[in-house]
Amino acid sequence: MEKNLKKINTSDENCPVRKTMSLVSGKWTLLILFQINDRTIRYGELKKTIPGISEKMLIQQLNFLVKNEFVSKKAYPEIPPKVEYTLTNLGLKTLPIIEQLAKFGLENLK
Amino acid sequence: MEKNLKKINTSDENCPVRKTMSLVSGKWTLLILFQINDRTIRYGELKKTIPGISEKMLIQQLNFLVKNEFVSKKAYPEIPPKVEYTLTNLGLKTLPIIEQLAKFGLENLK
Repeated sequence: MEKNLKKINTSDENCPVRKTMSLVSGKWTLLILFQINDRTIRYGELKKTIPGISEKMLIQQLNFLVKNEFVSKKAYPEIPPKVEYTLTNLGLKTLPIIEQLAKFGLENLK
Repeated sequence: MEKNLKKINTSDENCPVRKTMSLVSGKWTLLILFQINDRTIRYGELKKTIPGISEKMLIQQLNFLVKNEFVSKKAYPEIPPKVEYTLTNLGLKTLPIIEQLAKFGLENLK
């Protein structure tokens, strides 16, 4: 792995870091994936886990993550509406990265 | 690790993922750290490794990374000016995370 990465001497549009960051570099993106984690969670419950995020931003980010197949959404035809989110297989693969970000934060940031 | 992280059931301002993302969630931030990597690199050379980044953005991001102690800057009193960047110990600790982002991109994104 290390050897392959050393060969990326230009981060153009083919760079795998650049491709990944183009999807997950939003301030909230990885936090949302982290909070959904390995469970199925309702919209209202998810919102509570991320204090400070606006309704508009959370919905926009969730739609983006659904569109890019990191998250799957299930809406039940009920009143009041019930909407649940789960990580896809692709979304689940981001969890080890997020765990490393958390580890970095725990060990290095006050 | 996994057990500790499971306890983070609210991503408030104390959440280590949130803290880390507040520093590195810029579109270019991790790319810049990745390109500096384990070498000392001049400004002009670094700019060439990230096609598409503007002068203004690169300088702004580098100043941010210097301020937050991920990068150290050395300016030589020469004409033309010679400025070199190196990762600090803190910056070096982001490399394994960036390698995981690259691995994710290589394996999952077209």
